[in-house]
Amino acid sequence: MSALEQLRERMAELADLASIEMLAGWDQLVMMPSAGAEARAQQLGVLARLTHERATAAEIGVWLDAIDAAARNGEALAELDRDVVRLARRDWERARRVPEELAAELARASAAGQESWRAARQNDDFAAFAPALARNVELARAYGRCVAEDGQSAYEALLGDYDYGLRTEELRRVFSALGETLPALAQEARVRSPRRTVAAPIAAQRAAVAATLRRLGVDAASWRVDVSAHPFTAWIGRGDSRLTTRYSDGQIESLLSSLHEYGHALYERQIDPALERTNLGRGTSMSIHESQSKLWENHVARSPAFAEVLAAELAEGGFQVAPRELHAALVGVELTPVRVSADPLTYPLHILVRFELELALVEGDLPVEELPAAWREAMRRLLGIEVPSDALGCLQDVHWGAGSFGYFPSYALGCLIAAQLWETLEAELGSREEDLRRGEVGAIQAWLREHVHRHGRRLDTTALVERATGRTLEIDPFLRYVSPLAGR
Amino acid sequence: MSALEQLRERMAELADLASIEMLAGWDQLVMMPSAGAEARAQQLGVLARLTHERATAAEIGVWLDAIDAAARNGEALAELDRDVVRLARRDWERARRVPEELAAELARASAAGQESWRAARQNDDFAAFAPALARNVELARAYGRCVAEDGQSAYEALLGDYDYGLRTEELRRVFSALGETLPALAQEARVRSPRRTVAAPIAAQRAAVAATLRRLGVDAASWRVDVSAHPFTAWIGRGDSRLTTRYSDGQIESLLSSLHEYGHALYERQIDPALERTNLGRGTSMSIHESQSKLWENHVARSPAFAEVLAAELAEGGFQVAPRELHAALVGVELTPVRVSADPLTYPLHILVRFELELALVEGDLPVEELPAAWREAMRRLLGIEVPSDALGCLQDVHWGAGSFGYFPSYALGCLIAAQLWETLEAELGSREEDLRRGEVGAIQAWLREHVHRHGRRLDTTALVERATGRTLEIDPFLRYVSPLAGR
Repeated sequence: MSALEQLRERMAELADLASIEMLAGWDQLVMMPSAGAEARAQQLGVLARLTHERATAAEIGVWLDAIDAAARNGEALAELDRDVVRLARRDWERARRVPEELAAELARASAAGQESWRAARQNDDFAAFAPALARNVELARAYGRCVAEDGQSAYEALLGDYDYGLRTEELRRVFSALGETLPALAQEARVRSPRRTVAAPIAAQRAAVAATLRRLGVDAASWRVDVSAHPFTAWIGRGDSRLTTRYSDGQIESLLSSLHEYGHALYERQIDPALERTNLGRGTSMSIHESQSKLWENHVARSPAFAEVLAAELAEGGFQVAPRELHAALVGVELTPVRVSADPLTYPLHILVRFELELALVEGDLPVEELPAAWREAMRRLLGIEVPSDALGCLQDVHWGAGSFGYFPSYALGCLIAAQLWETLEAELGSREEDLRRGEVGAIQAWLREHVHRHGRRLDTTALVERATGRTLEIDPFLRYVSPLAGR
Repeated sequence: MSALEQLRERMAELADLASIEMLAGWDQLVMMPSAGAEARAQQLGVLARLTHERATAAEIGVWLDAIDAAARNGEALAELDRDVVRLARRDWERARRVPEELAAELARASAAGQESWRAARQNDDFAAFAPALARNVELARAYGRCVAEDGQSAYEALLGDYDYGLRTEELRRVFSALGETLPALAQEARVRSPRRTVAAPIAAQRAAVAATLRRLGVDAASWRVDVSAHPFTAWIGRGDSRLTTRYSDGQIESLLSSLHEYGHALYERQIDPALERTNLGRGTSMSIHESQSKLWENHVARSPAFAEVLAAELAEGGFQVAPRELHAALVGVELTPVRVSADPLTYPLHILVRFELELALVEGDLPVEELPAAWREAMRRLLGIEVPSDALGCLQDVHWGAGSFGYFPSYALGCLIAAQLWETLEAELGSREEDLRRGEVGAIQAWLREHVHRHGRRLDTTALVERATGRTLEIDPFLRYVSPLAGR
């Protein structure tokens, strides 16, 4: 076998191992009896160790060098293979820059940090969590320095795990612009479009979710829809997409979360089949992935037109609600201290708080013990609210406890990119209002396939946004999307 | 790490990989959307390849030699480690004896053979299957010769994949004794205890299966019970046992098959926890495994006493049947050409046919093209029936199409060993009749744990039977179990 064939075979193997890991993770959260947890942790540990070993093996470097040498001798690579080789080198070099002891220490500190976080949140006791957090910050900084490329700060290097190529400077630009405009809009929207409830019973929600997903192409032959404590999506193969949702009596979150997860699943399904079982055959970044879920959540499920479909499906399930009332409930604004229950307008403000603070933590500008006060100050400044407790403040999310820094920005970027893509899509295809009113999404799916999905990892976040929309990342489309909530 | 520690770590890894493979297989048959099949085949292929690579790696030999050398220098191994090392060497040497090209050829021929078999059975066209079968026989013979130990025939070597240490001679002895006695019993039982039906609706069966399994300790915290086309059991971890069953309206097979699968699951659950994540921590052989499923199927579910429990649970599910009538239906004898629907008495006769013929095929005494005629002759001789077609004759099972030779005997051995264990158990504990009438199985579970389950792979089939029952493998207990059906 040639070096290229060997490389591609290893990439196929790693893709399959990633699918198996995803299956084991899905099963753990959806099917596994609780007493299986200990064995599952062992099994996932073995998969992670084998995957790491095969992904960082020295022979990959030998193959890459042989391919480079052949290229210098005039052996041209096919276009697809050029990207396979480019990403293979990037991933391999990045993974090899992390010493094994540091990787092991990161894993241990992540596990210990999550345990510590869980107890601290339960007891609203930040001080008990502070040492574990300090350890995670320190290790994240060390890790960032290891993987940093020329001139990158540790924080920017951390971003690369989720959104390769994203610049801290770019985030500062975008998020500070949002921070200047969005707080005022939020205060107006809170009054103008207050949150309402639509007390749909679970049976009606189930019926509506199933029927709506069927309209979007979710069939039993290649999808599963299950229930889990936290909604998520697993893609086990091109014909095997699995999304989960959850149902609370008298709430309608299930309508949003199922469309959100559908967006993630559709992205992976519509990647160019030629990329399957290569290192290019998955979504390119966290923020593009989140843009796909947010596009279906914010621009489809939360549109006034699609509310007619959702209301009709709820009615089929035995629950009557006027589309206008349903839509108002799906977009209503409320200033709450909790990110996961935030509305579409204030959601990015929650992320701004976290970006500001994690950047300061990693850069050493914020001592860990000052985090609670800094959190309260930022929430006051950006959302205008008083945080009632650390449990509902800086202890609400697991991410930092698990050692994840640089992950939060993708949540806000997802909202921004979704809005920017949606404006471009409507500019090219015309308003989607009539289609959405009839539950017709074929043209949306096709546009997304062509401009976003099919590329897989061949384009990084920024390049993809620019290619798809003809513009650099901007906040105006998102502001135009939320302004009506403030009556502007 | 010492050589022993490294060996034990590799064994733990292989145990985890086996669990992951089982999970992926379970998911495929129970949860996977059909369009996921192609990706799943790739994923299972990668798991198998990695497992093979790690199980046959040269370093295992280095560790084993170092451990042996240390032992010669007086470093005594703990008792458990002696068995770990003994089985590790046996497995490693056996696996290494198979050249890679032959292993690949076996896998290809197995896949092609199953395809060919499927079409041939559908069209009742043995001639279309004959070339693939001939290829499988030839490769099985070659494989058997590779793994044969001193003086073993190819067929005996094949047996070792399912029941290590089993002698062809021993099988001949046992099966020919059965062949002399059982056919006459079958003819009498056919008249005396004819098959009857109990037309329980599916809902009542479901309720009865769930309630009965709950009595046996099947709880949601560490078990799953699902439906699949063919009942089977997966053990993903000590606290994660998954059995499946199937329901047909107006039949009661589900009552038997769920208890059968429960027997497999209980075996794996009751292995000594100290063997977990070693190479000893699973059932020792196919025939001991089958003895555990048959013990619960034949000696519990088919007992007159337990019929009272089953009838009561069916009644709770809304279906009335007298225990005596239910019991008669669960044991009724019918001479059918099809193995999987055979009754407890005639079942081993179906295996005798297969043993005789697969032995002759592998030893070169039966040309493939003469198989259909030989099958008809054997069915006439042993069961006294005419086979209506090859589809219901020598094409009914997938095993030979998949390249499995030496597997069938374990089905009959399971029936024999179950009866022998049951007699010993009752001799030691007293008749189980009163307990079974009340659905009490704690003493049975405990006896099986102590005498069969806890050993894992530390004892091979024959040694385990002799240790547990104080006697070599014999047919009399089975004959005593089935004789009442013939009125003897």
